[in-house]
Amino acid sequence: MSFDVLQKKIIEKRNPTVAGLDPKPEQIPPHILKMACDQYGETLAGAAEAVWQFNRGLIDALSDVVPAVKPQSAYYERLGWRGMEVMERTISYAQERGLFVIADVKRGDIGSTAQAYADGWLGETQVGESACSAFHADCVTLNGYMGSDTVLPFVDTCRKYGKCLFLLAKTSNPGSGELQNLTAGDRLVYQLLGDMAERLGTGTEGDYGYGLAGAVTGATYPEELRELRARLPHTFFLVPGYGAQGGTAEDVQYAFDRKGCGAVVNASRSIMCAWQKTGKGGADFQEAARAAAEAMRDAIGQYVTIL
Amino acid sequence: MSFDVLQKKIIEKRNPTVAGLDPKPEQIPPHILKMACDQYGETLAGAAEAVWQFNRGLIDALSDVVPAVKPQSAYYERLGWRGMEVMERTISYAQERGLFVIADVKRGDIGSTAQAYADGWLGETQVGESACSAFHADCVTLNGYMGSDTVLPFVDTCRKYGKCLFLLAKTSNPGSGELQNLTAGDRLVYQLLGDMAERLGTGTEGDYGYGLAGAVTGATYPEELRELRARLPHTFFLVPGYGAQGGTAEDVQYAFDRKGCGAVVNASRSIMCAWQKTGKGGADFQEAARAAAEAMRDAIGQYVTIL
Repeated sequence: MSFDVLQKKIIEKRNPTVAGLDPKPEQIPPHILKMACDQYGETLAGAAEAVWQFNRGLIDALSDVVPAVKPQSAYYERLGWRGMEVMERTISYAQERGLFVIADVKRGDIGSTAQAYADGWLGETQVGESACSAFHADCVTLNGYMGSDTVLPFVDTCRKYGKCLFLLAKTSNPGSGELQNLTAGDRLVYQLLGDMAERLGTGTEGDYGYGLAGAVTGATYPEELRELRARLPHTFFLVPGYGAQGGTAEDVQYAFDRKGCGAVVNASRSIMCAWQKTGKGGADFQEAARAAAEAMRDAIGQYVTIL
Repeated sequence: MSFDVLQKKIIEKRNPTVAGLDPKPEQIPPHILKMACDQYGETLAGAAEAVWQFNRGLIDALSDVVPAVKPQSAYYERLGWRGMEVMERTISYAQERGLFVIADVKRGDIGSTAQAYADGWLGETQVGESACSAFHADCVTLNGYMGSDTVLPFVDTCRKYGKCLFLLAKTSNPGSGELQNLTAGDRLVYQLLGDMAERLGTGTEGDYGYGLAGAVTGATYPEELRELRARLPHTFFLVPGYGAQGGTAEDVQYAFDRKGCGAVVNASRSIMCAWQKTGKGGADFQEAARAAAEAMRDAIGQYVTIL
């Protein structure tokens, strides 16, 4: 199963982290943005070209340090279809460089529509006699507010194509408790969503004991993280909120099992925008990102030992 | 405010409905799909061209009957960036024909990412000195599971650009009650999300009394619909689930206020795929869609009078 693929890459690189690729135009090194805009004008086409050049540089710099990347769809959709074209190219390029790709799309919709999303992001679409794939990510993030019947098409598609998914449980943002920490029936709402992931993954556990349905639980709420780890023994975790959002290596240690498996920690800005802190105007964005990714790996390594 | 724009169009056409544009390749009339695939092959490019021809034909046929269309993003994403290009073109074309466009994207993410989505779907993105717009819809659907801080960037963007949004409250799918009908604190979860919409819209009420934050509440649950109407006097409703999903004209009457305002009912398959029931192989897809839209308008008109 697909979390096996991710877990193996994590073990190979001794690094349970994923680098977010969330490029805002204003976070791209000026020389890259200028070159793209000289060619395409200050347009969405120019911004998309700049994002592509930036992403390619980041992937080249990071591909032997991190096991995975996580492009956040919002930053590509923002640039319209040209951004989505760069999203597709970024996913392909990262996979060619051996990286596992989590498409951070947080989709969720009624059954037939969920199937269309699953086809587009993980599977294939039938056009006449041909099966065509669009974004072909390895994994997606999903929002289960609408109920488990809206997640099932993704589960089926993951089974068919050897892929996996993360369901939002306890998110990293300040207001996540507004709904997620309420008591609903016999448990808290984020527990209910975590339980949904555990249940949907039952019977699909791979070599490391994890089913194909993982859960998102933020580094910014270490108590909930710890408690969900104990509650959901077969659920792989995606842990956002490390770094710029305030989560620390100490906080994320609770996401892992006793073998140092079962979780991947995301950092976006702290890696992608590391060049903003070196005073070199972005000329060193690759070295800066790589150094930040290594520092993150080593910081987490102080608390988590992968056996 | 933007629900005024929609409400005015509804009153002009005496029709409180929205036609969903959710084109699956297999639901496109065969002659359209064949012509597109002859030109582009059985590829995503071929499917995207077919979707565009189908959408354009539907918009031409419907633009003086319905006030609004609702493209569902999943069916465009499924075709990769080529599908997203057709989504952009469809939105532009519908607006040129005087239609209000609800982009059914059900997005939701942490603050900075939510801002990127809002920029992409409703607002603008700064590229150097230029402000560029991508999908420029009039309205979006959102998922508030992550909390109201994740909806606020959309509220701000709506205020700035005169747009509006719908927050998922009680969705039309069979499993929606799994989370949405649980008691969380002093109310049910779908009520909490409905209350969130009412609160976020406070102070933005327009000529008809509705704020910029609407709510989604399915025709398949008429009791919840009725109760939410009473609970949320300033919240405009988007009512999916009519027709193919089982909701009837009798069911949706409860979504409207005493003046017949404050709601719009969606039908997708029953209009888009009306050609599948006439036995003419799709040659009459425009006439069939138009007749289905008129029948839906008239059916709802038996229960709802727009004053």
